[in-house]
Amino acid sequence: MVRIAKLQIDSAQLESYKAALKEHAETAVRVEPGVITLYAVYEKNNPTHVTVFEIYANTEAYQSHLKAPHFLKYKTSTKEMVKSLELIETVPIALEGKSKIPN
Amino acid sequence: MVRIAKLQIDSAQLESYKAALKEHAETAVRVEPGVITLYAVYEKNNPTHVTVFEIYANTEAYQSHLKAPHFLKYKTSTKEMVKSLELIETVPIALEGKSKIPN
Repeated sequence: MVRIAKLQIDSAQLESYKAALKEHAETAVRVEPGVITLYAVYEKNNPTHVTVFEIYANTEAYQSHLKAPHFLKYKTSTKEMVKSLELIETVPIALEGKSKIPN
Repeated sequence: MVRIAKLQIDSAQLESYKAALKEHAETAVRVEPGVITLYAVYEKNNPTHVTVFEIYANTEAYQSHLKAPHFLKYKTSTKEMVKSLELIETVPIALEGKSKIPN
């Protein structure tokens, strides 16, 4: 299951948001077996525009992620920082990497 | 170096395009040491909208990629399939994955 999240962040809180997202991504990938990849970037020309490329083992792993304490903490702590959030469900064409994605 | 490519594909040529992109991604990651990740997806609700999440070791690796025969073949063969292409330069916030990205 692959999803893209597109966010716009309040510019005054951008550094706090990035720190919270980084901590959340590290924790989720470390402790949740079904969270395969959380790649978060911001646009060079538009630093308040953040994109997260998310790979979960399956929909169960994603549902479990939504209930994880670190996810709830991230959502709560960043609630006032996120001006908009768009979630885009996607279908893989190719997921090629030097390190293979585990099945 | 992390970049996002957003493409719109001619719907009549979508299957051909996906096959060409898949072949290209597999080849590039296999033969080019500096092409770390090429994750290509299309939107479930908008299948002609394709996003590629691209990680290169550095700008030299990216410049070398642009001259690789498989890249030139992909560009030529898909030229009439791609209706629009937007390249977004990004800065990583977190690149967390079950398999670590090689340095």
